[in-house]
Amino acid sequence: MPEHEPARCDAALKRAFTFLGKRWNGVLLGSLAAGPMSYTELHKGVEGISPSVLSDRLVELCGAGLVLRQVDEGPPISVSYRLAPAGEKLVPVLNELSRWAAGNLPGEVVEVP
Amino acid sequence: MPEHEPARCDAALKRAFTFLGKRWNGVLLGSLAAGPMSYTELHKGVEGISPSVLSDRLVELCGAGLVLRQVDEGPPISVSYRLAPAGEKLVPVLNELSRWAAGNLPGEVVEVP
Repeated sequence: MPEHEPARCDAALKRAFTFLGKRWNGVLLGSLAAGPMSYTELHKGVEGISPSVLSDRLVELCGAGLVLRQVDEGPPISVSYRLAPAGEKLVPVLNELSRWAAGNLPGEVVEVP
Repeated sequence: MPEHEPARCDAALKRAFTFLGKRWNGVLLGSLAAGPMSYTELHKGVEGISPSVLSDRLVELCGAGLVLRQVDEGPPISVSYRLAPAGEKLVPVLNELSRWAAGNLPGEVVEVP
């Protein structure tokens, strides 16, 4: 079987970066890799995200089938978020990407406006 | 040595997605993974990129040390772009990311405005 060449897979790669590069999606998946978290824990853990954007992104990540919203009826009722199987499959890739960035991506890169 | 946990590496991961998620950066690196390419080849190969954005991104990628601009004095003079060592190290990660997206990321994901 021939090696999977990114040049032939531009569409998938573009889709990955469009989705994961959208502010916080990739980082939220990375945070959930450590285990299930409540909304409050995610908000504390991901520096700089606003409550409304966090809500939007969680809806989007759940809609894409990468994150599961789990309701524990309690009392008290509690809601937590965890990676769905499709999201779990991304974890080793996120680890590699994080390692690569730490060693190879200059720190002073300007943020996308 | 403890496993590298993305939750502890949010900063690097955020940096990776901010940079690679910026339109075309990740896809351009993916295209160059196949080998050195001229500006014209890149423009043809990456569907939808405008000439001025392609120029800007190549300057940015060269500035970040991920791509090398190589001038062959000729005649005729020719310029090609290829991955620098830091960019080459990203290739296996891009392959994994592309594979993951092809199998796990829904196709109907809306583009970032």
